[in-house]
Amino acid sequence: MELAFEKQGGLLPAILQDESSKEVLMLGYVNPQALAETWKLGEVHFFSRSRNRLWKKGETSGHVLRLKQMLVDCDADALLLLVEPVGPGVCHEGYRSCFFRELNADGAERVIAERVFSAEQVYRRSEGQ
Amino acid sequence: MELAFEKQGGLLPAILQDESSKEVLMLGYVNPQALAETWKLGEVHFFSRSRNRLWKKGETSGHVLRLKQMLVDCDADALLLLVEPVGPGVCHEGYRSCFFRELNADGAERVIAERVFSAEQVYRRSEGQ
Repeated sequence: MELAFEKQGGLLPAILQDESSKEVLMLGYVNPQALAETWKLGEVHFFSRSRNRLWKKGETSGHVLRLKQMLVDCDADALLLLVEPVGPGVCHEGYRSCFFRELNADGAERVIAERVFSAEQVYRRSEGQ
Repeated sequence: MELAFEKQGGLLPAILQDESSKEVLMLGYVNPQALAETWKLGEVHFFSRSRNRLWKKGETSGHVLRLKQMLVDCDADALLLLVEPVGPGVCHEGYRSCFFRELNADGAERVIAERVFSAEQVYRRSEGQ
């Protein structure tokens, strides 16, 4: 099938969900090259919009994400990647999921998760995730 | 907190997850007005990119999504909405989730879910979702 990369300047949003716990871990973006590497190596690759390059999730931290299943939505413009995380968490702030804050109607935020690793220790040698 | 609407031309991606089953239902986009309506009415509103207007999910089908919790990611550029779906499914093709197809490495697709309602009956009077 044809994926609708052109809708968003060559990138598709990819939701990462823990296959086992069903927790949503993060939202990333893929281009065709990132998808090809993900299929080839069985570990999730993104296209980093901030660094403007291919980015293997966990390349610095070792917290890679093993691809278990890839789903595509009805419009072929979003992906859902079911993964097995290697390591305690995916968020560069030290949480299991990047969605660690609750947002309220008045715009206030509240942290609802526990830190599971020290981001300083894991990332002290570089800026990578 | 400030949400990073400017990163994507005024829209933020919002992942919809069934609060109870943890199934990921769809990915939509919100602007500040859609968020305000969602908070005000307790039912999910999007900004439709194809119709270029505010869009209450379920406005045609009656399959609205009741907001239970809103989470925001570390970069404040993606939302995760935990919802209670009213009705059998969210997909305009008649499935519970828009992610009803599996994608394989060779680009082949395979439907992995059962249709739960007749899209023709629900949408026969309009093009809305």
